[in-house]
Amino acid sequence: MSEPGNTPEDREADAAPQSLDEDNRLTDEFVRSVSDAVDQADPNLAQELVNPLHNADIADLFELVDEDERAPLAAALGDLVSADVLAEMNEHVREDLIEILEPGQIADLTEQLETDDAVAIIEDLKEGEQKAVLAELDAEDRAVIETALTYPEETAGRIMQRDLVAVPEHMNVGQLIDYLREHDDLTTEFWEIFVVDPAHKPVGTCQLSWILRTPRDIAVSDVMKREQTLVPADMDQEEVALRFQKYNLISAAVVDEDGRLIGMITVDDILHIVEDEASEDVLLLSGAGEGDINEPIRESYRARVRWLIANLATALLASFVISIFGAAIEQMVALAILMPIVASIGGNAGTQTMAVSVRALAMNELTRSNTRRIIGREFRIALLNGGTVAVLVGIGTALIFANPMLGGVIAAAMLVNIVIAGFAGIFVPVMLDRLHQDPALASSVFVTMITDTMGFLAFLGFAVASGLVGL
Amino acid sequence: MSEPGNTPEDREADAAPQSLDEDNRLTDEFVRSVSDAVDQADPNLAQELVNPLHNADIADLFELVDEDERAPLAAALGDLVSADVLAEMNEHVREDLIEILEPGQIADLTEQLETDDAVAIIEDLKEGEQKAVLAELDAEDRAVIETALTYPEETAGRIMQRDLVAVPEHMNVGQLIDYLREHDDLTTEFWEIFVVDPAHKPVGTCQLSWILRTPRDIAVSDVMKREQTLVPADMDQEEVALRFQKYNLISAAVVDEDGRLIGMITVDDILHIVEDEASEDVLLLSGAGEGDINEPIRESYRARVRWLIANLATALLASFVISIFGAAIEQMVALAILMPIVASIGGNAGTQTMAVSVRALAMNELTRSNTRRIIGREFRIALLNGGTVAVLVGIGTALIFANPMLGGVIAAAMLVNIVIAGFAGIFVPVMLDRLHQDPALASSVFVTMITDTMGFLAFLGFAVASGLVGL
Repeated sequence: MSEPGNTPEDREADAAPQSLDEDNRLTDEFVRSVSDAVDQADPNLAQELVNPLHNADIADLFELVDEDERAPLAAALGDLVSADVLAEMNEHVREDLIEILEPGQIADLTEQLETDDAVAIIEDLKEGEQKAVLAELDAEDRAVIETALTYPEETAGRIMQRDLVAVPEHMNVGQLIDYLREHDDLTTEFWEIFVVDPAHKPVGTCQLSWILRTPRDIAVSDVMKREQTLVPADMDQEEVALRFQKYNLISAAVVDEDGRLIGMITVDDILHIVEDEASEDVLLLSGAGEGDINEPIRESYRARVRWLIANLATALLASFVISIFGAAIEQMVALAILMPIVASIGGNAGTQTMAVSVRALAMNELTRSNTRRIIGREFRIALLNGGTVAVLVGIGTALIFANPMLGGVIAAAMLVNIVIAGFAGIFVPVMLDRLHQDPALASSVFVTMITDTMGFLAFLGFAVASGLVGL
Repeated sequence: MSEPGNTPEDREADAAPQSLDEDNRLTDEFVRSVSDAVDQADPNLAQELVNPLHNADIADLFELVDEDERAPLAAALGDLVSADVLAEMNEHVREDLIEILEPGQIADLTEQLETDDAVAIIEDLKEGEQKAVLAELDAEDRAVIETALTYPEETAGRIMQRDLVAVPEHMNVGQLIDYLREHDDLTTEFWEIFVVDPAHKPVGTCQLSWILRTPRDIAVSDVMKREQTLVPADMDQEEVALRFQKYNLISAAVVDEDGRLIGMITVDDILHIVEDEASEDVLLLSGAGEGDINEPIRESYRARVRWLIANLATALLASFVISIFGAAIEQMVALAILMPIVASIGGNAGTQTMAVSVRALAMNELTRSNTRRIIGREFRIALLNGGTVAVLVGIGTALIFANPMLGGVIAAAMLVNIVIAGFAGIFVPVMLDRLHQDPALASSVFVTMITDTMGFLAFLGFAVASGLVGL
């Protein structure tokens, strides 16, 4: 974790062009003046401009400049590009920068970081490079990082930090304070201390505020809270984040399979995970893959084109349905004009229900206990929505085409499709979740397929069934 | 903030049916056994089952049972439905429960909570009820809550808590520890202390770990960090959350317009805001309104139908475009069969770019400095995607319909529409953001309108232009 920043007010006084706008983003004028200084080979000016910035803003600066400006910017800024700046940086931008560094330099940088940040940098390196960097680390750091890397990505073992304060039960508050004062090598980034038994298993947690408010002669075990949320090292980070949210945690002990304390996770890291996981849902639902604006183009292309091709398959199915009714369309071209309305509004209705279901599943709010009730709820909303839209479209169509039967056909098709959409919007994500698939990843292909196909089928089918056209 | 929970392991031993599943959700068996106990008028059994649960899980229980079971459940559980349980509860479920309470009871409950949680409960009450509850509060609590309610919803003033530790600069560490030990009425829920000048303006922040590690005779002002992020009381909560994420904050001082310390915001509250704001983006993009599965049906209906009607307007525009080409479709019904493919895949491509842009804007990653570069990036991805899909669809169409010209027409239309979609997907959200509108709220109506209309126009227009059909 890095340090809290200056207020924008503090910084404005320092930098020549105002560095941050009212939304706390780097201003375009500032970014350009740094770029210009780098272009004009004036590293002193560049450093002078950047020096007052918080590490997070220096990281942002690298993300904002063009790709080919990043290496010269890093060269100009020199030591201002600290390990903490790298830790704050978007991973793709960091990879670009790290490629120009020697393994020894990378090792030096990572040694200054806490375990979780060091692991985040090293895990992104190519395998050969990873080995080279690990070889440059001192034995202790290497062992810590290698252990962390044995846990799967996005699990507690990867995101935990090793530096924590753990004390035996028999200590009293006075001894604890003396211990903390005497050991300069301990981390300062902790908000709770862990009390462990002789086997190093956590038996309780103490908020620092409790310790500060307790007389010196009271035993730590009388202050600590015995009920605590222990996180197994192989727990998925999304699951960890849900525990932090549910139980309002500031930090949590990470334990190995024998229940021994091996690390801790602090809430500031969880904040980024909550953001990432929630963003992931928007991006997955839209088929945008990782959806990072700094991702290399070929990776974005690969993720997105796969999705478009999957959707192409569903669009073909819809086209196949239309082709069955080719003769009907030839008789009444109004059908071709109106049919996209039915499919499109049905798709919108399905997407609404699907977004609600996917978020509720992700938040553990939709479980076996309330699935039936929520399906009933969505069904009633779909009837209301479908009814409203059907009346509007039906009357409009009857008037514009001077054909009341056509109005009735499109109204009926609209109602049916919106109800089916509502049902699909909840059924598909719930089924995917029960099959242990990520509902955000695949739901929308299926839901769109259902609403498109059923939209065309209902509209053209009802047109034939009503005798409006022959087949 | 409530206390950290038992581990699931602890709880399993207590409750007869296993209360939590492997994802830490209440099991259906458990929920049913509590419901059954309430049905059978056995409050003792219900209490025995629920007693081992964490407050957050008791709140979940109310969310999971049917609406008409909530009041009897509350009656059966009695005091187990504590103020902390109410604070953890979904607001809609809480409103239902609170409706059956007297103003005096609500006042008693809110007095047990920290300011931010009490405000969250009182702000949702109807105006008359709000006044009645405020009248029942003691004068001091009333003043605090009334002040908080003067700030707009979703601003720092609403989410801050008043209970904090602020000390003068001249104190030393020993005096501070003695002060904390002697004042039992101080909050225990704090992670940093604030150092203030005589005018009560914050001059620095101290992590508790720094205090614990410093000898008693050192002045607090020598330990504190002078650079700090001060949050104005009227700052939007989303903005506050971005500061916490950017600067890895645990707590932040909230100041009034004169710069005086009036409250603090802690990271555990921010965690919920980050989750809510990110969810909001998924739900707004999909037109699902608030998208809470506990929202009353009429509110969900109102939010969603408005969206469907807005989309209906855009669908009509697309239909109008098709109607121009009615004669062309009569000549070649294959056009009607194929045209939804062009519109649908274009819509998907637009949604991908739009999701990426909306998230990047929300995260402050897309600014004036890199907009042009990101537009260029999306343009190149769109060319790659459009090229790939155009080739696939073009060849497929040429073969299936034995009509190479038709294949060429659909390929060209597809490429054009995907490129337009990519451009619209970034241009629309960026424009809305510059006009100070929420890009998540309105982008997808415009993007869909563009991709639908342009899809039909390009495909049918190229068909006419190529001489394949007449107009």
